[in-house]
Amino acid sequence: MIYLDYAAATPVSKKVVQAMLPYFGENFYNPSAAYGPARQVRADYQEAKHRLAQLIGARPAEIVITPGATESINLALFGVKTPVRGDSAVITTSVEHPAVLECARAIGATILPVDEQGRLNLDDLRKNITDDTQLISVGYANNELGTVQNLKEIAEICRLERFRRAERSLGVPLVLHTDASQAAGYLDVNVARLGVDMMTLNSGKCYGPKGVGLLYVRSGTVLEPIIRGGGQEMGLRSGTENVAGVIGFALALEIAEKKRKSEVKRLEILRDNLEKYITTNGAIINSRAKHRLPNIINFSVDGLDAERVVFGLDQRGIQVATGSACAANKGARSHVLTAVGLTPSQADGSLRISLGRGTTTAQIEKFKPILKEVIENEQKFS
Amino acid sequence: MIYLDYAAATPVSKKVVQAMLPYFGENFYNPSAAYGPARQVRADYQEAKHRLAQLIGARPAEIVITPGATESINLALFGVKTPVRGDSAVITTSVEHPAVLECARAIGATILPVDEQGRLNLDDLRKNITDDTQLISVGYANNELGTVQNLKEIAEICRLERFRRAERSLGVPLVLHTDASQAAGYLDVNVARLGVDMMTLNSGKCYGPKGVGLLYVRSGTVLEPIIRGGGQEMGLRSGTENVAGVIGFALALEIAEKKRKSEVKRLEILRDNLEKYITTNGAIINSRAKHRLPNIINFSVDGLDAERVVFGLDQRGIQVATGSACAANKGARSHVLTAVGLTPSQADGSLRISLGRGTTTAQIEKFKPILKEVIENEQKFS
Repeated sequence: MIYLDYAAATPVSKKVVQAMLPYFGENFYNPSAAYGPARQVRADYQEAKHRLAQLIGARPAEIVITPGATESINLALFGVKTPVRGDSAVITTSVEHPAVLECARAIGATILPVDEQGRLNLDDLRKNITDDTQLISVGYANNELGTVQNLKEIAEICRLERFRRAERSLGVPLVLHTDASQAAGYLDVNVARLGVDMMTLNSGKCYGPKGVGLLYVRSGTVLEPIIRGGGQEMGLRSGTENVAGVIGFALALEIAEKKRKSEVKRLEILRDNLEKYITTNGAIINSRAKHRLPNIINFSVDGLDAERVVFGLDQRGIQVATGSACAANKGARSHVLTAVGLTPSQADGSLRISLGRGTTTAQIEKFKPILKEVIENEQKFS
Repeated sequence: MIYLDYAAATPVSKKVVQAMLPYFGENFYNPSAAYGPARQVRADYQEAKHRLAQLIGARPAEIVITPGATESINLALFGVKTPVRGDSAVITTSVEHPAVLECARAIGATILPVDEQGRLNLDDLRKNITDDTQLISVGYANNELGTVQNLKEIAEICRLERFRRAERSLGVPLVLHTDASQAAGYLDVNVARLGVDMMTLNSGKCYGPKGVGLLYVRSGTVLEPIIRGGGQEMGLRSGTENVAGVIGFALALEIAEKKRKSEVKRLEILRDNLEKYITTNGAIINSRAKHRLPNIINFSVDGLDAERVVFGLDQRGIQVATGSACAANKGARSHVLTAVGLTPSQADGSLRISLGRGTTTAQIEKFKPILKEVIENEQKFS
């Protein structure tokens, strides 16, 4: 088996599973209970949050644990307290994950186009900010193309806008949120260096358990909960804490950060190697942004039925994707590839190959001729 | 150690952990991906949902997996589609879990009182239903007193009201939701027999993993999602599926159902034994409803500092609670005990002892004199 869909899901690291196990068994206590063993579980939980905070350069009180990136994003977008006025209250881009886009559409947002590499034009952003704009949500690294947005510049734009508002005594807050789900383990996710006010991370994308994520909320950011109840997570996300999940997430992110620099170098070499092969064989590389993730290749063969290639490779024990898994499941054409200007037949002829911790040179070498053969077979038939 | 706080948290059964493990490791795939191994994971996930459905007498398409009971409750209460008009749109009781009460307060609801056993008066309910009432939410079994509500009668009241509305061509739907988190494993949770339209269950309260729950939504019930994104769970709860969690939940509920009748008998004997001892020693039993859970004893010693008793017992290796864990964590007085008419000093002198699968006769016998001693010590000091 050659798994090349790490952008869709990562296996949970064995060390992470081992760290989680005691919290299913002997340390199963409700962390809100008053007795010693439960207080110990609470301490372990807080310690894990402390580590998560440290890993992203935040304070523990700025970390809201959620059941995954989708809920983090929903909290960020729906949690903005001031009643939303008009479509400029939220600004986002056309290449965001469906979680961002669906929330943005429900609120009524300005959805900005991107260039052919998937990047937001900063002048375009500046022009679209109005006095009513309260939230800007821009994904750090795109899940289909790997394109990395210039978050630092976007943060600077927000800083200047806040400054102008303060000068005019305009009380409308402006908050910058980024969905960094695909970035963890590959890019710097330090919130202070990035300058973001809110950041979404997903355990299931960095070799931690699924069903856990976090939302970093900069101290002072006013947010309303969307899930109410017992008041856990400083009232921002009620519900009994998923202790095992958070213990696993913290260790997973720690390992990912430790391996980051060496993994990036290793994967860039593998990616460039494979990309060269794909280009030589006449395909067009879509993931060609200057700033991009080291593990994603997205390419098109015009007129190809990429879904059939996925199945053809699957029969040979190789897993790749046509795009995001949730889109694949609905048979929908990629909104990301459409947004960067691909024609329908180019978009339908696109494959996303995403490398990860288990990917080796031997796997890539084995994969190359099989990919060629399966694509050629498909072209014969169509 | 003698753990007597099963109503706050249950350990995950070993069999359940074993069933979950492969989904962290070899079966880690995103269930929405298109290739064979992911489709197998999707099939396993669907099979687990199918089993959950069967266990509660529902169809698989009526099961929405959530990250726990709190989110199930939020979805049930906030998901009602028709815009809410006035405080009679939602009716609930004063002894509900904070998740229900916080949502109800945010919407603006009629919160009905209960009798001294914690039961809703059905005439009171009938009187409070107006043409605007869209949702009635009544907890099946109370988490502090164990009091069981007469859901079948409440369902009948809803049925008659719907019938009257149909006769008058009034289009306002009326939906009955129950939070059955504490009931699973002790009471019949068959939705058809209960006659409810929505039901919340919590994996973490029935020896499954924390961070997983379900909302049963009767086919035909119109509900809006509160978490938007990739469209998982029929669009009602987006986010990559927590496959390991659901596999664990399904097995946990299956085991709980299998053991139910024998466990109820076993725990009733232990409970009655302990309760008799507590009564003989002069305490007042609060959990005295005719219909109640077999595993909860709640009693008061007027003027006692129950929190100190919890700590005293903790020092002897015994875990009990003053009430719900989330209330304990905030040092808040039990709203449930206040609702059934206890004075502040009675409520503050109350302990909840909840038995479970690991509770034995030997433990109860060992517990009795220690409980007496710790309470007597406290009374000397106060």
